[in-house]
Amino acid sequence: MTTDTYPKTAESTFTVDSKEVRIGAMAKGSGMIYPNMATMISVITTDIKIKKADAKLVIKEIADKTYNRVCVDGDTSVCDKVLLLANGKSNVSYENCKEEFKTQLLEVTDKLARMLAQDGEGATKMINVVIKGAPTENDAKLMAHAIAKSPLCKTAAFGEDANWGRLLTAAGYSGAEFDPTKCDVYIGDLLTCNKGNAIVFDEDKALDQLKDSEITYTINLNQGDGEYYVYTCDLSYDYVKINADYRT
Amino acid sequence: MTTDTYPKTAESTFTVDSKEVRIGAMAKGSGMIYPNMATMISVITTDIKIKKADAKLVIKEIADKTYNRVCVDGDTSVCDKVLLLANGKSNVSYENCKEEFKTQLLEVTDKLARMLAQDGEGATKMINVVIKGAPTENDAKLMAHAIAKSPLCKTAAFGEDANWGRLLTAAGYSGAEFDPTKCDVYIGDLLTCNKGNAIVFDEDKALDQLKDSEITYTINLNQGDGEYYVYTCDLSYDYVKINADYRT
Repeated sequence: MTTDTYPKTAESTFTVDSKEVRIGAMAKGSGMIYPNMATMISVITTDIKIKKADAKLVIKEIADKTYNRVCVDGDTSVCDKVLLLANGKSNVSYENCKEEFKTQLLEVTDKLARMLAQDGEGATKMINVVIKGAPTENDAKLMAHAIAKSPLCKTAAFGEDANWGRLLTAAGYSGAEFDPTKCDVYIGDLLTCNKGNAIVFDEDKALDQLKDSEITYTINLNQGDGEYYVYTCDLSYDYVKINADYRT
Repeated sequence: MTTDTYPKTAESTFTVDSKEVRIGAMAKGSGMIYPNMATMISVITTDIKIKKADAKLVIKEIADKTYNRVCVDGDTSVCDKVLLLANGKSNVSYENCKEEFKTQLLEVTDKLARMLAQDGEGATKMINVVIKGAPTENDAKLMAHAIAKSPLCKTAAFGEDANWGRLLTAAGYSGAEFDPTKCDVYIGDLLTCNKGNAIVFDEDKALDQLKDSEITYTINLNQGDGEYYVYTCDLSYDYVKINADYRT
Protein backbone atom coordinates (compact mmCIF):
# COMPACT_ATOMS: atom_id res chain seq x y z
CA MET A 1 0.00 0.00 0.00
CA THR A 2 1.31 3.42 -0.88
CA THR A 3 0.31 6.49 1.06
CA ASP A 4 1.57 8.96 -1.55
CA THR A 5 -1.27 11.30 -2.47
CA TYR A 6 0.07 12.33 -5.88
CA PRO A 7 2.67 11.22 -8.45
CA LYS A 8 6.03 12.93 -8.02
CA THR A 9 7.89 13.70 -11.21
CA ALA A 10 10.36 16.29 -12.45
CA GLU A 11 12.32 16.79 -15.65
CA SER A 12 14.86 19.01 -17.29
CA THR A 13 16.39 19.56 -20.73
CA PHE A 14 19.59 21.43 -21.53
CA THR A 15 21.71 21.88 -24.62
CA VAL A 16 25.39 21.13 -25.18
CA ASP A 17 26.89 21.94 -28.60
CA SER A 18 23.40 22.15 -30.09
CA LYS A 19 22.53 18.68 -28.76
CA GLU A 20 19.78 18.17 -26.23
CA VAL A 21 20.31 16.28 -22.98
CA ARG A 22 17.23 15.15 -21.11
CA ILE A 23 16.67 14.17 -17.52
CA GLY A 24 13.43 12.69 -16.22
CA ALA A 25 12.78 11.49 -12.68
CA MET A 26 10.08 10.12 -10.41
CA ALA A 27 9.95 9.26 -6.74
CA LYS A 28 7.54 7.61 -4.34
CA GLY A 29 7.41 7.54 -0.54
CA SER A 30 5.59 9.45 2.17
CA GLY A 31 6.14 7.67 5.50
CA MET A 32 9.09 5.90 7.12
CA ILE A 33 11.26 8.57 5.57
CA TYR A 34 14.63 9.49 6.98
CA PRO A 35 18.06 9.84 5.40
CA ASN A 36 19.83 6.74 4.11
CA MET A 37 17.26 4.11 5.01
CA ALA A 38 13.75 5.03 4.02
CA THR A 39 10.69 3.70 2.23
CA MET A 40 11.61 5.85 -0.74
CA ILE A 41 12.13 4.76 -4.33
CA SER A 42 13.32 7.09 -7.06
CA VAL A 43 14.18 6.39 -10.67
CA ILE A 44 16.04 8.91 -12.82
CA THR A 45 16.50 8.48 -16.54
CA THR A 46 18.78 10.47 -18.81
CA ASP A 47 20.16 10.19 -22.30
CA ILE A 48 23.61 11.49 -21.40
CA LYS A 49 26.66 9.31 -22.04
CA ILE A 50 28.21 8.60 -18.66
CA LYS A 51 30.54 5.91 -17.31
CA LYS A 52 29.22 3.74 -14.51
CA ALA A 53 31.90 4.96 -12.10
CA ASP A 54 31.06 8.61 -12.83
CA ALA A 55 27.34 7.94 -12.51
CA LYS A 56 27.92 6.40 -9.07
CA LEU A 57 29.89 9.42 -7.89
CA VAL A 58 27.36 11.89 -9.26
CA ILE A 59 24.31 10.18 -7.81
CA LYS A 60 25.96 9.88 -4.38
CA GLU A 61 26.87 13.58 -4.41
CA ILE A 62 23.38 14.59 -5.50
CA ALA A 63 21.55 12.24 -3.13
CA ASP A 64 23.36 13.72 -0.14
CA LYS A 65 21.97 17.14 -1.06
CA THR A 66 18.43 16.01 -1.90
CA TYR A 67 16.99 12.59 -1.00
CA ASN A 68 19.11 12.41 2.15
CA ARG A 69 17.71 15.75 3.32
CA VAL A 70 14.15 14.51 3.68
CA CYS A 71 12.67 13.59 7.06
CA VAL A 72 9.01 12.72 7.51
CA ASP A 73 9.00 10.88 10.83
CA GLY A 74 12.56 9.75 11.48
CA ASP A 75 11.49 6.16 10.99
CA THR A 76 13.17 4.11 8.32
CA SER A 77 12.97 0.87 6.40
CA VAL A 78 15.24 -1.17 4.17
CA CYS A 79 13.51 -0.20 0.92
CA ASP A 80 15.46 2.96 0.04
CA LYS A 81 16.58 3.03 -3.56
CA VAL A 82 17.69 5.60 -6.15
CA LEU A 83 18.40 4.41 -9.67
CA LEU A 84 20.12 6.51 -12.33
CA LEU A 85 19.65 5.01 -15.79
CA ALA A 86 21.57 6.53 -18.72
CA ASN A 87 21.30 5.27 -22.30
CA GLY A 88 23.72 7.62 -24.04
CA LYS A 89 21.29 8.43 -26.87
CA SER A 90 21.98 12.18 -26.72
CA ASN A 91 25.56 11.58 -27.90
CA VAL A 92 26.65 14.14 -25.31
CA SER A 93 29.41 12.95 -23.00
CA TYR A 94 29.26 13.72 -19.30
CA GLU A 95 32.91 14.84 -19.52
CA ASN A 96 31.80 17.74 -21.76
CA CYS A 97 29.20 19.12 -19.39
CA LYS A 98 29.95 17.93 -15.89
CA GLU A 99 28.88 21.00 -13.98
CA GLU A 100 25.80 21.67 -16.12
CA PHE A 101 24.62 18.06 -15.80
CA LYS A 102 25.09 18.09 -12.02
CA THR A 103 23.31 21.42 -11.74
CA GLN A 104 20.34 20.15 -13.74
CA LEU A 105 20.26 16.81 -11.92
CA LEU A 106 20.40 18.61 -8.58
CA GLU A 107 17.48 20.81 -9.59
CA VAL A 108 15.37 17.84 -10.69
CA THR A 109 16.07 15.71 -7.62
CA ASP A 110 15.71 18.69 -5.28
CA LYS A 111 12.19 19.17 -6.63
CA LEU A 112 11.41 15.53 -5.88
CA ALA A 113 12.92 15.73 -2.39
CA ARG A 114 10.76 18.73 -1.59
CA MET A 115 7.68 16.93 -2.91
CA LEU A 116 8.48 13.93 -0.70
CA ALA A 117 8.50 16.16 2.38
CA GLN A 118 5.43 18.09 1.24
CA ASP A 119 3.50 14.84 0.72
CA GLY A 120 4.74 13.28 3.98
CA GLU A 121 2.07 11.19 5.66
CA GLY A 122 -0.64 13.46 7.00
CA ALA A 123 1.36 16.61 6.21
CA THR A 124 -0.50 19.91 5.87
CA LYS A 125 2.68 21.86 5.19
CA MET A 126 6.27 21.40 4.11
CA ILE A 127 8.97 22.78 6.39
CA ASN A 128 12.45 23.95 5.44
CA VAL A 129 14.75 23.71 8.45
CA VAL A 130 17.78 25.90 7.77
CA ILE A 131 20.78 26.16 10.08
CA LYS A 132 23.43 28.79 9.38
CA GLY A 133 26.54 30.10 11.08
CA ALA A 134 27.27 26.89 12.98
CA PRO A 135 30.76 26.03 14.22
CA THR A 136 30.84 23.10 11.74
CA GLU A 137 28.57 21.56 9.08
CA ASN A 138 28.11 18.56 11.36
CA ASP A 139 26.79 20.76 14.19
CA ALA A 140 24.35 22.32 11.74
CA LYS A 141 23.29 18.85 10.55
CA LEU A 142 22.69 17.58 14.09
CA MET A 143 20.51 20.60 14.87
CA ALA A 144 18.53 20.43 11.63
CA HIS A 145 17.79 16.73 12.15
CA ALA A 146 16.77 17.18 15.78
CA ILE A 147 14.27 19.90 14.81
CA ALA A 148 12.97 17.89 11.83
CA LYS A 149 12.31 14.86 14.05
CA SER A 150 10.95 16.69 17.11
CA PRO A 151 7.26 15.88 17.70
CA LEU A 152 6.93 19.21 19.52
CA CYS A 153 8.37 21.27 16.65
CA LYS A 154 6.23 19.35 14.16
CA THR A 155 2.98 19.71 16.11
CA ALA A 156 3.67 23.44 16.66
CA ALA A 157 3.89 23.81 12.87
CA PHE A 158 0.61 21.94 12.48
CA GLY A 159 -0.89 24.29 15.08
CA GLU A 160 0.61 27.29 13.25
CA ASP A 161 2.21 28.55 16.42
CA ALA A 162 5.39 30.65 16.25
CA ASN A 163 7.01 28.62 19.00
CA TRP A 164 10.69 29.39 18.43
CA GLY A 165 11.45 28.05 21.91
CA ARG A 166 10.72 24.51 20.76
CA LEU A 167 13.13 24.98 17.85
CA LEU A 168 15.92 26.22 20.08
CA THR A 169 15.25 23.47 22.64
CA ALA A 170 15.51 20.74 19.99
CA ALA A 171 18.71 22.37 18.72
CA GLY A 172 19.92 22.32 22.32
CA TYR A 173 19.48 18.59 22.82
CA SER A 174 20.78 17.69 19.37
CA GLY A 175 24.32 17.16 20.59
CA ALA A 176 25.61 20.10 18.53
CA GLU A 177 28.12 22.47 20.08
CA PHE A 178 26.94 26.06 20.15
CA ASP A 179 26.37 29.12 22.29
CA PRO A 180 22.62 29.77 22.58
CA THR A 181 23.22 33.40 23.56
CA LYS A 182 24.42 34.09 20.01
CA CYS A 183 21.47 32.49 18.19
CA ASP A 184 18.91 34.27 16.05
CA VAL A 185 15.73 32.34 15.23
CA TYR A 186 13.48 33.24 12.28
CA ILE A 187 9.97 32.06 11.41
CA GLY A 188 9.91 32.72 7.69
CA ASP A 189 11.71 36.08 7.43
CA LEU A 190 10.49 37.24 10.84
CA LEU A 191 13.07 37.47 13.65
CA THR A 192 11.52 35.91 16.77
CA CYS A 193 14.58 35.40 18.98
CA ASN A 194 17.54 37.74 18.96
CA LYS A 195 20.87 36.47 20.31
CA GLY A 196 19.05 33.95 22.48
CA ASN A 197 16.61 36.50 23.86
CA ALA A 198 12.85 36.55 23.41
CA ILE A 199 11.82 39.68 21.52
CA VAL A 200 8.49 41.27 20.81
CA PHE A 201 7.46 40.33 17.28
CA ASP A 202 4.33 40.72 15.20
CA GLU A 203 2.36 37.54 15.98
CA ASP A 204 -0.10 38.21 13.17
CA LYS A 205 2.73 38.41 10.67
CA ALA A 206 4.14 35.15 12.08
CA LEU A 207 0.72 33.51 11.73
CA ASP A 208 0.47 34.68 8.11
CA GLN A 209 3.74 32.94 7.32
CA LEU A 210 2.77 29.80 9.25
CA LYS A 211 -0.47 29.49 7.30
CA ASP A 212 1.50 28.94 4.09
CA SER A 213 1.78 25.44 2.66
CA GLU A 214 5.54 25.87 2.89
CA ILE A 215 7.34 27.44 5.81
CA THR A 216 10.96 28.05 6.69
CA TYR A 217 12.57 27.94 10.12
CA THR A 218 16.03 29.46 10.19
CA ILE A 219 18.49 29.46 13.04
CA ASN A 220 21.59 31.58 12.54
CA LEU A 221 24.10 30.65 15.22
CA ASN A 222 26.52 33.43 14.28
CA GLN A 223 29.39 31.19 15.29
CA GLY A 224 31.00 29.94 12.08
CA ASP A 225 30.43 28.85 8.49
CA GLY A 226 28.64 25.54 9.08
CA GLU A 227 25.35 25.25 7.18
CA TYR A 228 22.77 22.52 6.65
CA TYR A 229 19.15 22.22 5.68
CA VAL A 230 16.53 19.49 5.98
CA TYR A 231 13.12 19.19 4.32
CA THR A 232 10.41 18.00 6.66
CA CYS A 233 6.69 18.38 7.36
CA ASP A 234 4.31 18.90 10.22
CA LEU A 235 2.81 16.18 12.46
CA SER A 236 -0.96 16.10 12.15
CA TYR A 237 -3.94 14.01 13.23
CA ASP A 238 -3.75 12.32 9.84
CA TYR A 239 -0.23 11.03 10.47
CA VAL A 240 -1.61 9.24 13.51
CA LYS A 241 -4.62 8.02 11.56
CA ILE A 242 -2.55 6.68 8.66
CA ASN A 243 -0.17 4.83 10.94
CA ALA A 244 -2.59 3.61 13.60
CA ASP A 245 -5.57 2.64 11.48
CA TYR A 246 -3.87 1.34 8.36
CA ARG A 247 -5.25 -2.18 8.70
CA THR A 248 -8.89 -1.25 9.01
CA MET B 1 0.04 25.05 32.27
CA THR B 2 0.28 21.44 33.30
CA THR B 3 -1.05 18.64 31.11
CA ASP B 4 -0.95 16.01 33.86
CA THR B 5 -4.40 14.44 34.16
CA TYR B 6 -4.02 13.19 37.74
CA PRO B 7 -1.75 13.71 40.78
CA LYS B 8 1.13 11.22 40.94
CA THR B 9 2.10 10.11 44.42
CA ALA B 10 3.58 7.01 46.05
CA GLU B 11 4.72 6.13 49.55
CA SER B 12 6.31 3.40 51.61
CA THR B 13 6.98 2.58 55.24
CA PHE B 14 9.43 0.03 56.59
CA THR B 15 10.74 -0.86 60.01
CA VAL B 16 14.32 -0.98 61.26
CA ASP B 17 14.92 -2.05 64.91
CA SER B 18 11.25 -1.36 65.69
CA LYS B 19 11.53 2.15 64.31
CA GLU B 20 9.52 3.26 61.32
CA VAL B 21 11.09 4.89 58.27
CA ARG B 22 8.79 6.69 55.88
CA ILE B 23 9.17 7.67 52.25
CA GLY B 24 6.69 9.84 50.39
CA ALA B 25 7.01 11.09 46.83
CA MET B 26 5.22 13.01 44.12
CA ALA B 27 5.97 13.79 40.52
CA LYS B 28 4.52 15.92 37.73
CA GLY B 29 5.12 15.92 34.01
CA SER B 30 3.45 14.46 30.93
CA GLY B 31 5.03 15.96 27.82
CA MET B 32 8.58 16.91 26.83
CA ILE B 33 9.70 13.85 28.70
CA TYR B 34 12.96 12.09 27.92
CA PRO B 35 15.86 10.95 30.10
CA ASN B 36 18.04 13.55 31.79
CA MET B 37 16.41 16.70 30.50
CA ALA B 38 12.64 16.71 30.78
CA THR B 39 9.72 18.77 31.97
CA MET B 40 9.53 16.54 35.03
CA ILE B 41 9.61 17.55 38.65
CA SER B 42 9.66 15.08 41.52
CA VAL B 43 9.98 15.64 45.24
CA ILE B 44 10.73 12.81 47.65
CA THR B 45 10.57 13.21 51.41
CA THR B 46 11.82 10.77 54.02
CA ASP B 47 12.56 10.80 57.73
CA ILE B 48 15.70 8.67 57.43
CA LYS B 49 19.02 10.08 58.69
CA ILE B 50 21.29 10.30 55.69
CA LYS B 51 24.40 12.30 54.85
CA LYS B 52 24.21 14.65 51.90
CA ALA B 53 26.92 12.76 50.01
CA ASP B 54 25.10 9.44 50.51
CA ALA B 55 21.79 10.98 49.49
CA LYS B 56 23.36 12.24 46.26
CA LEU B 57 24.71 8.81 45.40
CA VAL B 58 21.45 7.06 46.22
CA ILE B 59 19.22 9.44 44.24
CA LYS B 60 21.51 9.24 41.21
CA GLU B 61 21.47 5.43 41.32
CA ILE B 62 17.69 5.32 41.72
CA ALA B 63 16.98 8.00 39.10
CA ASP B 64 18.89 6.05 36.47
CA LYS B 65 16.56 3.10 37.03
CA THR B 66 13.31 5.05 37.21
CA TYR B 67 12.95 8.70 36.14
CA ASN B 68 15.60 8.28 33.45
CA ARG B 69 13.67 5.36 31.96
CA VAL B 70 10.65 7.44 30.96
CA CYS B 71 10.11 8.60 27.38
CA VAL B 72 6.93 10.32 26.27
CA ASP B 73 7.98 12.01 23.05
CA GLY B 74 11.76 12.23 23.10
CA ASP B 75 11.52 15.99 23.47
CA THR B 76 13.12 17.65 26.46
CA SER B 77 13.36 20.87 28.39
CA VAL B 78 15.59 22.34 31.04
CA CYS B 79 13.10 21.90 33.89
CA ASP B 80 14.03 18.39 35.04
CA LYS B 81 14.41 18.13 38.80
CA VAL B 82 14.37 15.43 41.47
CA LEU B 83 14.65 16.51 45.10
CA LEU B 84 15.28 14.12 47.99
CA LEU B 85 14.56 15.78 51.34
CA ALA B 86 15.47 13.93 54.55
CA ASN B 87 14.84 15.31 58.04
CA GLY B 88 16.25 12.47 60.16
CA LYS B 89 13.22 12.38 62.45
CA SER B 90 12.99 8.56 62.36
CA ASN B 91 16.32 8.28 64.18
CA VAL B 92 17.22 5.49 61.81
CA SER B 93 20.57 5.90 60.08
CA TYR B 94 20.92 5.10 56.42
CA GLU B 95 24.07 3.13 57.30
CA ASN B 96 21.91 0.63 59.21
CA CYS B 97 19.51 -0.14 56.37
CA LYS B 98 21.19 0.77 53.09
CA GLU B 99 19.78 -2.01 50.95
CA GLU B 100 16.30 -1.86 52.45
CA PHE B 101 16.12 1.91 51.98
CA LYS B 102 17.27 1.68 48.38
CA THR B 103 14.81 -1.12 47.67
CA GLN B 104 11.91 0.89 49.10
CA LEU B 105 12.99 4.09 47.38
CA LEU B 106 13.31 2.24 44.09
CA GLU B 107 9.81 0.84 44.47
CA VAL B 108 8.30 4.25 45.24
CA THR B 109 10.07 6.05 42.40
CA ASP B 110 9.44 3.20 39.95
CA LYS B 111 5.72 3.62 40.61
CA LEU B 112 6.01 7.33 39.81
CA ALA B 113 8.04 6.68 36.67
CA ARG B 114 5.41 4.28 35.39
CA MET B 115 2.68 6.81 36.16
CA LEU B 116 4.58 9.48 34.21
CA ALA B 117 4.62 7.24 31.14
CA GLN B 118 1.02 6.15 31.65
CA ASP B 119 -0.11 9.77 31.86
CA GLY B 120 2.04 10.90 28.93
CA GLU B 121 0.33 13.55 26.83
CA GLY B 122 -2.56 11.98 24.96
CA ALA B 123 -1.57 8.45 26.03
CA THR B 124 -4.20 5.72 25.93
CA LYS B 125 -1.77 3.07 27.14
CA MET B 126 1.56 2.67 28.90
CA ILE B 127 4.20 0.60 27.12
CA ASN B 128 7.06 -1.34 28.69
CA VAL B 129 9.87 -1.75 26.17
CA VAL B 130 12.08 -4.59 27.36
CA ILE B 131 15.32 -5.63 25.64
CA LYS B 132 17.08 -8.81 26.77
CA GLY B 133 20.02 -10.90 25.65
CA ALA B 134 21.85 -7.98 24.01
CA PRO B 135 25.62 -8.03 23.47
CA THR B 136 25.95 -5.16 25.98
CA GLU B 137 23.67 -3.05 28.20
CA ASN B 138 24.37 -0.08 25.95
CA ASP B 139 23.13 -1.94 22.86
CA ALA B 140 19.95 -2.82 24.79
CA LYS B 141 19.57 0.83 25.83
CA LEU B 142 19.97 2.14 22.28
CA MET B 143 17.33 -0.28 21.02
CA ALA B 144 14.87 0.44 23.84
CA HIS B 145 15.16 4.20 23.28
CA ALA B 146 14.75 3.92 19.50
CA ILE B 147 11.53 1.92 19.93
CA ALA B 148 10.22 4.25 22.66
CA LYS B 149 10.75 7.30 20.42
CA SER B 150 9.59 5.79 17.11
CA PRO B 151 6.37 7.46 15.85
CA LEU B 152 5.59 4.26 13.92
CA CYS B 153 5.92 1.97 16.97
CA LYS B 154 3.88 4.42 19.07
CA THR B 155 1.07 4.81 16.53
CA ALA B 156 0.93 1.02 16.03
CA ALA B 157 0.34 0.69 19.79
CA PHE B 158 -2.40 3.31 19.59
CA GLY B 159 -3.92 1.34 16.71
CA GLU B 160 -3.57 -1.89 18.71
CA ASP B 161 -1.75 -3.58 15.87
CA ALA B 162 0.74 -6.37 16.58
CA ASN B 163 3.29 -4.86 14.21
CA TRP B 164 6.50 -6.49 15.48
CA GLY B 165 8.20 -5.47 12.21
CA ARG B 166 8.15 -1.82 13.29
CA LEU B 167 9.78 -2.79 16.60
CA LEU B 168 12.57 -4.73 14.91
CA THR B 169 13.05 -1.96 12.34
CA ALA B 170 13.48 0.66 15.05
CA ALA B 171 15.89 -1.66 16.85
CA GLY B 172 17.72 -1.99 13.55
CA TYR B 173 18.30 1.72 13.06
CA SER B 174 19.12 2.37 16.72
CA GLY B 175 22.85 1.99 16.19
CA ALA B 176 22.99 -1.11 18.41
CA GLU B 177 25.08 -4.07 17.30
CA PHE B 178 23.09 -7.27 16.92
CA ASP B 179 22.22 -10.15 14.63
CA PRO B 180 18.54 -9.88 13.64
CA THR B 181 18.40 -13.58 12.70
CA LYS B 182 18.71 -14.45 16.39
CA CYS B 183 15.97 -12.11 17.66
CA ASP B 184 12.69 -13.17 19.24
CA VAL B 185 9.97 -10.51 19.49
CA TYR B 186 7.07 -10.77 21.94
CA ILE B 187 3.85 -8.74 22.16
CA GLY B 188 2.92 -9.31 25.80
CA ASP B 189 3.78 -13.00 26.29
CA LEU B 190 2.99 -13.87 22.69
CA LEU B 191 5.90 -14.81 20.43
CA THR B 192 5.39 -12.97 17.11
CA CYS B 193 8.84 -13.28 15.52
CA ASN B 194 11.09 -16.28 16.05
CA LYS B 195 14.82 -15.89 15.37
CA GLY B 196 14.11 -13.06 12.96
CA ASN B 197 11.42 -14.96 11.07
CA ALA B 198 7.74 -14.08 10.83
CA ILE B 199 5.66 -16.83 12.39
CA VAL B 200 1.96 -17.53 12.42
CA PHE B 201 0.53 -16.29 15.72
CA ASP B 202 -2.93 -15.86 17.16
CA GLU B 203 -3.89 -12.31 16.11
CA ASP B 204 -6.93 -12.31 18.39
CA LYS B 205 -4.73 -13.13 21.37
CA ALA B 206 -2.34 -10.34 20.32
CA LEU B 207 -5.25 -7.90 20.07
CA ASP B 208 -6.47 -8.90 23.55
CA GLN B 209 -3.07 -7.99 24.98
CA LEU B 210 -2.86 -4.76 22.98
CA LYS B 211 -6.24 -3.63 24.28
CA ASP B 212 -4.83 -3.49 27.84
CA SER B 213 -3.98 -0.12 29.35
CA GLU B 214 -0.45 -1.47 29.86
CA ILE B 215 1.40 -3.49 27.28
CA THR B 216 4.88 -4.98 27.08
CA TYR B 217 7.07 -5.35 24.02
CA THR B 218 10.00 -7.67 24.57
CA ILE B 219 12.89 -8.34 22.22
CA ASN B 220 15.23 -11.14 23.24
CA LEU B 221 18.35 -10.92 21.12
CA ASN B 222 19.80 -14.18 22.42
CA GLN B 223 23.26 -12.71 22.02
CA GLY B 224 24.51 -11.84 25.50
CA ASP B 225 23.55 -10.58 28.95
CA GLY B 226 22.75 -6.93 28.11
CA GLU B 227 19.36 -5.80 29.39
CA TYR B 228 17.46 -2.51 29.48
CA TYR B 229 13.90 -1.31 29.76
CA VAL B 230 12.13 1.96 29.04
CA TYR B 231 8.66 3.13 30.03
CA THR B 232 6.80 4.89 27.26
CA CYS B 233 3.29 5.41 25.86
CA ASP B 234 1.43 5.42 22.57
CA LEU B 235 1.09 8.37 20.18
CA SER B 236 -2.53 9.37 19.76
CA TYR B 237 -4.65 12.10 18.19
CA ASP B 238 -4.69 13.77 21.61
CA TYR B 239 -0.91 14.15 21.68
CA VAL B 240 -1.22 16.16 18.46
CA LYS B 241 -4.15 18.11 19.85
CA ILE B 242 -2.40 18.99 23.12
CA ASN B 243 0.77 20.13 21.35
CA ALA B 244 -0.76 21.84 18.32
CA ASP B 245 -3.77 23.55 19.87
CA TYR B 246 -2.43 24.47 23.30
CA ARG B 247 -2.81 28.20 22.77
CA THR B 248 -6.44 28.17 21.79
